[in-house]
Amino acid sequence: MSTNADFELYAFWRTAATHRVRIALNMKGLLANERFVDLDKAEQTSPAFLAISPAGVIPALIEDSYPPLTQSMAILEFLEEKVADPPLLPSDLHGRARVRSISAMLVTDTNPLLPPRVKKYLTLHGGFDEAAWHAWQVQWLTSSLESLERRLASESQTGEFCHGDHPTMADICLVSLVFRAQALQIDLDSTPTIRDIVKNCAALDAFARAHPLLQEGAPSR
Amino acid sequence: MSTNADFELYAFWRTAATHRVRIALNMKGLLANERFVDLDKAEQTSPAFLAISPAGVIPALIEDSYPPLTQSMAILEFLEEKVADPPLLPSDLHGRARVRSISAMLVTDTNPLLPPRVKKYLTLHGGFDEAAWHAWQVQWLTSSLESLERRLASESQTGEFCHGDHPTMADICLVSLVFRAQALQIDLDSTPTIRDIVKNCAALDAFARAHPLLQEGAPSR
Repeated sequence: MSTNADFELYAFWRTAATHRVRIALNMKGLLANERFVDLDKAEQTSPAFLAISPAGVIPALIEDSYPPLTQSMAILEFLEEKVADPPLLPSDLHGRARVRSISAMLVTDTNPLLPPRVKKYLTLHGGFDEAAWHAWQVQWLTSSLESLERRLASESQTGEFCHGDHPTMADICLVSLVFRAQALQIDLDSTPTIRDIVKNCAALDAFARAHPLLQEGAPSR
Repeated sequence: MSTNADFELYAFWRTAATHRVRIALNMKGLLANERFVDLDKAEQTSPAFLAISPAGVIPALIEDSYPPLTQSMAILEFLEEKVADPPLLPSDLHGRARVRSISAMLVTDTNPLLPPRVKKYLTLHGGFDEAAWHAWQVQWLTSSLESLERRLASESQTGEFCHGDHPTMADICLVSLVFRAQALQIDLDSTPTIRDIVKNCAALDAFARAHPLLQEGAPSR
């Protein structure tokens, strides 16, 4: 581990959860040495990795001698408590609640339907082929983005970003989900509020540097 | 709305997300007037309810003239910030991160696989009958509980509850998931750490009063 890094991060280039943690680290000005775990080769189930992260999940963030911290939303809250500036949450009680609610709409309600273990189950027990798996992903991503669009377009707190004019945890969650949607050729024309917010995020260095296609292991563009 | 209630809570007796919010309200000594939304009659999609909660999701917590707050984990964090005692999170940074990580294991990774909209999709597009839907639920609930059992049994911070000897957000999430598992006759014999923690929770008034079968609309026992 490089002596000037704050953390080790067990990561994969493509996963939305890792994407979220990379953006948050960049925003907070924190440095992590990444350890590449190849999900396409099921390295997360190897004895070597399980010795480091017993749950076999990535991302796993390790600070000094503390046990690995898993679950992206727990990691985001941890980074927010560890380094105050710039904040990932607004300063007022109800604003914080709104940002966490939008984040949960995206991460809790949608992402868990999309991991490899669900694909495996549906292939074995639901007769899903690649086309059916594609349709399943499109269904949940599209309905999630449409639901969020209605919310953002109707609530006065929405600004240049999901909540006001500064990026928060909600924007991090949104960008990670939109990357996945765009990989499936879902466009954002019918969700213009989201499209504009994602564009504003992409213009920020912390978001741009975290783009999955710029990470180790990604296919070259 | 009764003048001495702190909130209105749009709720259904059975859902895990509502269950979590009820426990947290009880722990914090807060009172909510419940508004019953019958998911079995799809009342969450009625125009009357959508006028109150545009996303059509429950639970929705309403405080005075603020917009409805949705998403159980956002509600739990909101209640924790609003009323400090008793805390739902430990006081130390890494302890708070561990509790949020355990909570997310349960709520983020598992609950979203189980709602009615997923059942509907799998029935229409995956050929699922009742037996296949039962097997699907058992698969994700069992694997989630087994994964948490390994974690709790191996980590020194586990005590009478998921984290030390006081109940936290993690126990709230665990109890809500276990209720759902037990409704499917999944027993806890192979997850003894969880079994003991759930027993300790059930002995607390805040958890006991929040039991789904004691709520309006529940089948009589």
